[in-house]
Amino acid sequence: IAAIVSGDVTVHEFNAPKLQIFFPAKTGRKLQSFTWFSQAENIHCQHGLYFQDGQRRVDYVLTYPVKNRGIHSRGEHPRHHQAQRPKDSSSLPSSPVADVELGCLGETFNGQEDHKAFRREEFEGKLRDTGLELEKDEDTKIPGVGFVKIHAPWTILCREAEFMKLKMPTKRVYEVKQSTGVMEKISSLVSKVLEPLHPHVEEHQPKNIKHLSHTFSREKQHLFDLSDKDYFFDSKTRSSIVSSTGSCLHCGDINEESAESNDRKLLYEEWANYSVFYKYQPIGLVRKYFGEKIGLYFAWLGLYTQMLIPASLVGVIVFLYGCATVDDNIPSMEICHPRNNITMCPLCDRVCSYWKLSTACGTARASHLFDNPATVFFSIFMALWAAMFMEHWKRRQMRLNYEWDLTGFEDEEDHPRAEYEFRVMQKSLSKDQKSQHKVITCRSVLNYQDRLPAYMTNIVMMLLMIGVTFAIVFGVILYRISTKAALHMSSNPTTRNHVQLTVKTTAAIINLVVILILDEVYGAVARWLTVLEVPKTDKSFEERLIFKTFILKFFNAFTPIIYIAFFRGRLVGRPGSYLYVFESYRMEECAHGGCLMELCIQLSITMLGKQLIQNNLFEIGIPKLKKLIRYIRSKQGAFQEEERQKKLQRYEADHFLEPFAGLTPEYMEMIIQFGFVTLFVASFPLAPLFALLNNIIEIRLDAKKFVTELRRPVAARAKDIGIWYNILRGVAKVAVIINAFVISFTSDFIPRMVYQYMYSPDGSMHGFVNHTLSYFNVSHFQEGKETMDPLQLGYPVEICRYKDYREPPWSTTPYEISKEFWAVLAVRLAFVIVFQNVVMLMSDVVDWLIPDIPKDISLQIHKEKILLVDLFMKEEQGKVHILESRTSAVGKENCSSGNNNNSTMAHQRSGLHTNSTNSF
Amino acid sequence: IAAIVSGDVTVHEFNAPKLQIFFPAKTGRKLQSFTWFSQAENIHCQHGLYFQDGQRRVDYVLTYPVKNRGIHSRGEHPRHHQAQRPKDSSSLPSSPVADVELGCLGETFNGQEDHKAFRREEFEGKLRDTGLELEKDEDTKIPGVGFVKIHAPWTILCREAEFMKLKMPTKRVYEVKQSTGVMEKISSLVSKVLEPLHPHVEEHQPKNIKHLSHTFSREKQHLFDLSDKDYFFDSKTRSSIVSSTGSCLHCGDINEESAESNDRKLLYEEWANYSVFYKYQPIGLVRKYFGEKIGLYFAWLGLYTQMLIPASLVGVIVFLYGCATVDDNIPSMEICHPRNNITMCPLCDRVCSYWKLSTACGTARASHLFDNPATVFFSIFMALWAAMFMEHWKRRQMRLNYEWDLTGFEDEEDHPRAEYEFRVMQKSLSKDQKSQHKVITCRSVLNYQDRLPAYMTNIVMMLLMIGVTFAIVFGVILYRISTKAALHMSSNPTTRNHVQLTVKTTAAIINLVVILILDEVYGAVARWLTVLEVPKTDKSFEERLIFKTFILKFFNAFTPIIYIAFFRGRLVGRPGSYLYVFESYRMEECAHGGCLMELCIQLSITMLGKQLIQNNLFEIGIPKLKKLIRYIRSKQGAFQEEERQKKLQRYEADHFLEPFAGLTPEYMEMIIQFGFVTLFVASFPLAPLFALLNNIIEIRLDAKKFVTELRRPVAARAKDIGIWYNILRGVAKVAVIINAFVISFTSDFIPRMVYQYMYSPDGSMHGFVNHTLSYFNVSHFQEGKETMDPLQLGYPVEICRYKDYREPPWSTTPYEISKEFWAVLAVRLAFVIVFQNVVMLMSDVVDWLIPDIPKDISLQIHKEKILLVDLFMKEEQGKVHILESRTSAVGKENCSSGNNNNSTMAHQRSGLHTNSTNSF
Repeated sequence: IAAIVSGDVTVHEFNAPKLQIFFPAKTGRKLQSFTWFSQAENIHCQHGLYFQDGQRRVDYVLTYPVKNRGIHSRGEHPRHHQAQRPKDSSSLPSSPVADVELGCLGETFNGQEDHKAFRREEFEGKLRDTGLELEKDEDTKIPGVGFVKIHAPWTILCREAEFMKLKMPTKRVYEVKQSTGVMEKISSLVSKVLEPLHPHVEEHQPKNIKHLSHTFSREKQHLFDLSDKDYFFDSKTRSSIVSSTGSCLHCGDINEESAESNDRKLLYEEWANYSVFYKYQPIGLVRKYFGEKIGLYFAWLGLYTQMLIPASLVGVIVFLYGCATVDDNIPSMEICHPRNNITMCPLCDRVCSYWKLSTACGTARASHLFDNPATVFFSIFMALWAAMFMEHWKRRQMRLNYEWDLTGFEDEEDHPRAEYEFRVMQKSLSKDQKSQHKVITCRSVLNYQDRLPAYMTNIVMMLLMIGVTFAIVFGVILYRISTKAALHMSSNPTTRNHVQLTVKTTAAIINLVVILILDEVYGAVARWLTVLEVPKTDKSFEERLIFKTFILKFFNAFTPIIYIAFFRGRLVGRPGSYLYVFESYRMEECAHGGCLMELCIQLSITMLGKQLIQNNLFEIGIPKLKKLIRYIRSKQGAFQEEERQKKLQRYEADHFLEPFAGLTPEYMEMIIQFGFVTLFVASFPLAPLFALLNNIIEIRLDAKKFVTELRRPVAARAKDIGIWYNILRGVAKVAVIINAFVISFTSDFIPRMVYQYMYSPDGSMHGFVNHTLSYFNVSHFQEGKETMDPLQLGYPVEICRYKDYREPPWSTTPYEISKEFWAVLAVRLAFVIVFQNVVMLMSDVVDWLIPDIPKDISLQIHKEKILLVDLFMKEEQGKVHILESRTSAVGKENCSSGNNNNSTMAHQRSGLHTNSTNSF
Repeated sequence: IAAIVSGDVTVHEFNAPKLQIFFPAKTGRKLQSFTWFSQAENIHCQHGLYFQDGQRRVDYVLTYPVKNRGIHSRGEHPRHHQAQRPKDSSSLPSSPVADVELGCLGETFNGQEDHKAFRREEFEGKLRDTGLELEKDEDTKIPGVGFVKIHAPWTILCREAEFMKLKMPTKRVYEVKQSTGVMEKISSLVSKVLEPLHPHVEEHQPKNIKHLSHTFSREKQHLFDLSDKDYFFDSKTRSSIVSSTGSCLHCGDINEESAESNDRKLLYEEWANYSVFYKYQPIGLVRKYFGEKIGLYFAWLGLYTQMLIPASLVGVIVFLYGCATVDDNIPSMEICHPRNNITMCPLCDRVCSYWKLSTACGTARASHLFDNPATVFFSIFMALWAAMFMEHWKRRQMRLNYEWDLTGFEDEEDHPRAEYEFRVMQKSLSKDQKSQHKVITCRSVLNYQDRLPAYMTNIVMMLLMIGVTFAIVFGVILYRISTKAALHMSSNPTTRNHVQLTVKTTAAIINLVVILILDEVYGAVARWLTVLEVPKTDKSFEERLIFKTFILKFFNAFTPIIYIAFFRGRLVGRPGSYLYVFESYRMEECAHGGCLMELCIQLSITMLGKQLIQNNLFEIGIPKLKKLIRYIRSKQGAFQEEERQKKLQRYEADHFLEPFAGLTPEYMEMIIQFGFVTLFVASFPLAPLFALLNNIIEIRLDAKKFVTELRRPVAARAKDIGIWYNILRGVAKVAVIINAFVISFTSDFIPRMVYQYMYSPDGSMHGFVNHTLSYFNVSHFQEGKETMDPLQLGYPVEICRYKDYREPPWSTTPYEISKEFWAVLAVRLAFVIVFQNVVMLMSDVVDWLIPDIPKDISLQIHKEKILLVDLFMKEEQGKVHILESRTSAVGKENCSSGNNNNSTMAHQRSGLHTNSTNSF
């Protein structure tokens, strides 16, 4: 304005935000490309989204119980110390401590409602002091709950955005160059083909135009388009500026029948909807509505699901290969051959008798489906797949970081948790009492001595829990052994025939039920243990909780499977000297054809059962049930549901939704699934397919939950998925070694190879079955252990066979482990070494070959840097130019030191508005 | 000043740089704590360190050949495009291309001196355009060389510092709180004990006071102490601002006899000096003088050397343990026992005869020194040591980053190399010609098609070079075999007695010489291959070069050792069916007691020889030689050395020093040494000790080189050691698996264990030697291969023994591999798996347990953040306060939007200097 007075216009080149008021024409043009940013929110957020004056938007809502009515006693105390951020980070520790008493210990002050109210007043006063504007609404339709609506005015938003180093789009627009030539044609073709897979989320901006982003700073305000200050920061940014956790308002109703849409409705239609399951997710919109952290989860889930497509394809092909080659498989052919008359030793003491190997024909054929050379290839493939997945995720994350203007954003330091501060206070108080000092000691921290009891409890409890898992697995084994023995002794022939089926089915179901129950128990135990530890920050709390939960759930899910894969059938002893549990039960054997078949059955039951039950029952069923209960309750509460829907303020409606409980359970479920997909993939090539089918539903299920069932969580910024990435890496690493062992020890792959290349007379597999079976002279059975029915097969048996590499009875060292055993063992171990190292090397090569930053992104970042430098240089030159043309006595140091300029110019009193020089 | 006119003083609180001129008393106080920063440089940099006016400092020097005198024809063209940074990054590609013609193709324009001069003028003009000040000095005492001295005025420095986001110390000082209680006492005690180990580099600042640092920005100038603008940026920063590579001036002479010191002299006395070898390095000063990149190298080297102390201690203890237990070692006792009369089969065909095992007594005893259970412990220890080293380095790096104000600094994007631009230009030119377009096509890049030939050449050449290494190793083997055979046949008994010694020594020397020669060859080849590749940026060039050089040198150094460790003595066949090379030479066997002894000898010769020769000869000798040559030359050049020393300008004296050639050779040498220390440590526990001794010299040697022999390199900023860290990680990973194999396959550890726990009748080692020897019936020797002197031992031999696990002649399968072989093999492989996975897991745990950021640093960073926020908040409140007290019509949005304030205030025309509001 001063400039206009002095007749100077050129200065305003660098003063754009002001300009727009005076030159609407010019501004209008600039606005065009910018309004898409906030238009959607502009129109349709009405009910209770504004203060009473209809002007100021509600950015954040605090709820508290109102004294006079006692129906709702949930006691959702405002989480203070976050809302108070700017003060908190620089002020004394006394205010967080006060929060603790109010927030964390509030429950103990039951009789002191007045005291609480006073504290609340005090807290609200502090909020006002920081510049926030508050509006109370105690007279709501929901009994017993008071609301405090908070509005952050523009000044506060700017200041906080500057502190948070938020990157915001500037007015400067540039064109993203498309790759030229053949590549462009291919990519445009691909995008045309994939067109129907993209959700219908209108982007108001052409794709090849991008706004240059720059860290928001009030001095460089002129760079940003501030024409519409109400919508410069979108609602998620506004509420995250006000607070970092809590609840903010959903934007509009999903069932509104108006033609125009709001973000929430759009998400509901184009994302949280089973009918669009085949489409990509509108990640940008998800991020815009829910913030980066949730956006990253869905992006990760989406990529994982996408990556499962090739994995399940290859898995199905491997399975089909097994099906196709089952008739050419010589070992199973030999077993099934009618002239095969190998007599096997009894499978249990006394009640079982000798049996013909040919009766195991079916199992042998079925085993081949999962135990063929293609599985070796498949497990190498899956190890590389896992490495590729990690790399792709890194790239996707980088791309999202760029698109979401998070490059250069550093994770903010967490503030100490209230519980931690409370413990510290307790400690220093007790110290004071001991030393009889009345002076407040300097802020102390919890040291190892303070933490030792909690750490010890943690270790002991973790070991105990893992011990419980082991005990339960052992219990199930005992159940299987004893039931089998009992059923074998049954006089009912039908029972005896169905022994295997009965025992296996019931045992697997027991296992599954135990896993599901323990999963819940372990979740609670892990939380309890983490609370005991009193971690300093929220981040550390989350990480410790995740780590513990993961360890427990991992053991819970995989211990029975590891038992079957590596121990079952290996600890049976040999005929005449079996291994007994409790001196009466023989250890279990695997059916002929390796334990891989059983492993596969166990895996599929656990995986499918877990997914079906946890997903359908827990994730769909229970929320439905809760809603039903809430509905019934609200009817009792004497006001009509429908009426409520219509007349309730937005914040009142949101109050009825479930609070957001963090992403941990969602991630955990997926990581355990990732374990199923990678860890034992050698034995179950269909795992990726099942995971894929599950995840397609999972995405939409989670989306529905977030859009309709939960209160809108405050947007949290995040650059990456944090500890989950490390856990994924860990699982992928463990997967390599476990798959190596599964192939070499659980499957018959190595014995077959060894036979073919070392022992086979003609280099074929003929004779393999015979080679793997040792001889036993039935007269060597221990007293009382021999079968009661030796003539069951119709002829007397002198020599029976069993699966092991041992010397025959007629050698000088009968029943000793034979040379073949050692040779096979050596080859097995060699295979493990080679497999592990080759796969690890290949993973590293994949890691190294695929750059972490996608090429186009790195080019674009480079380009943006150049453009920014260019922009600043031009402004600078402009400034110098103006100054030179105006002031003749400009010294050598004019262009950089704004103060100098001012002094010279102030002397001249030329009326020049010097602000322009400084604002750059 | 305006403020003074209006009588307002408080505003100036935020306007300190101005203040100092008017209130010298106040400024003086502030200066006190700050002058240490530049004092040392202030006084003693005289000769030619300033322009002719004695005011402006020389920040950078360009040299060029002067036409009229042709003695010096090195042709050091100014490296233009870097000096032109701000322009280059934003302007068209045309100017770098021009540079190429001048700089890279300059040699071809020999007749066009005028053209060159014109181009130079043009370039200098461009430099002037960017704001730099130039002074020419063509009339120097050095014939044929012209100098252009460059001075960067304050404005340019500020602008560039802002672009580079340099963090500079602000005026705000805070106290670093020392830990209290017991810890403090301990740490003060430790620091007192270590006092004499610290170099005498005076720090003018108390240790517990630290300046708060903030990214330099001209708008926030008032935060920084700019009282002495000449020394706000120190010389290394100034020159790195002007350019990014090239040469800048050393600060003063090291031989000056004046009492006061300059940085260079201080470094020379307290760092580049063998007499202070026991002291820590003054890393801060090194960084101040040479910049972060070189500082990091020496910090890394220092940490590595420090970490070698415990490693060599443990290594010596392990070695001493071997010495102490050599008399209790049952296998060697059995071999040396006088009653032992085992007859061994001949070691070579025909000329050798049977021999008594007891003659191998010495070797067996010596083997025990390196082949005892302690070595297993030691290699686990060293694997963990390597992990600890990596972790400690991460922490040290973090600490240095913090102390050097590099936190938050992002690596700048490199600009394309001139060669790359040239190739791109060539490509687009040829494209244009082909398509007959006269329009300049848009800037293209090199795609895979362009690079394919170079990549193919790379791969082929790399494989070829590795092939050459293998061939040479094979050649040495052949030399050994054939010489041994020839010497055995010699009639001279003395020759025959010294066969082993002669052959081993000559072979090892040949190996060493070959390694040393190939090292140089491979260095050149790698550079050539990288130039062929035309990498885009300098960083990429360096990384590719390092990677290739590393691969080649690694193979070169370790192939012979790997051969000895894993192949020698394993491919000999058995008596009666030996393996022959070229149908006449039997493959080598190891002496009795495993090949570990030979591996150890080879390792020590290679390592010591490499270190001694490469260090002493190449690093000390050759520079001395070069200096001598230069000295002789300068005498021929007809002016006296001494005179020159005294009268020469600083830049003339520096011209005679070697240019800085990068840190790659220094790092490479250390990494190969790290390989020797970790890779085969199981066989040579003294390796860390040798490395330690070498490095103590190496540090001072390198320091001397940097201070006295090389031109001062332009300071380069770096946050980390880049690709070297990844290479270190890779070596540490490979070390784990190689050590596992050395222990299980090269040493006799596993066979001993297997014998003790599986075969020994009494659980002791008695009988182990007998167990490892197989029987051979001498009548089964092939025709013509039996010994010529069967009665050399004095009795006829029917059965001789050889070291292998094979069936005896009287078994049903004579000379077949026995069951023991497979059992031992299986245990060996199992050991490898267990060792590798356990050590990897332990390394991961170490990695996980040790936080990457030292606790005190993370606390301090946190504190600084709080202080900064505090500082800004206070300023803000101050501003608001002033404004509120001055202007009554301040709207709701006053405190953030400077423009608004100005408009309101401009209306009032109160004469208030509004600058203060804006400058924050």
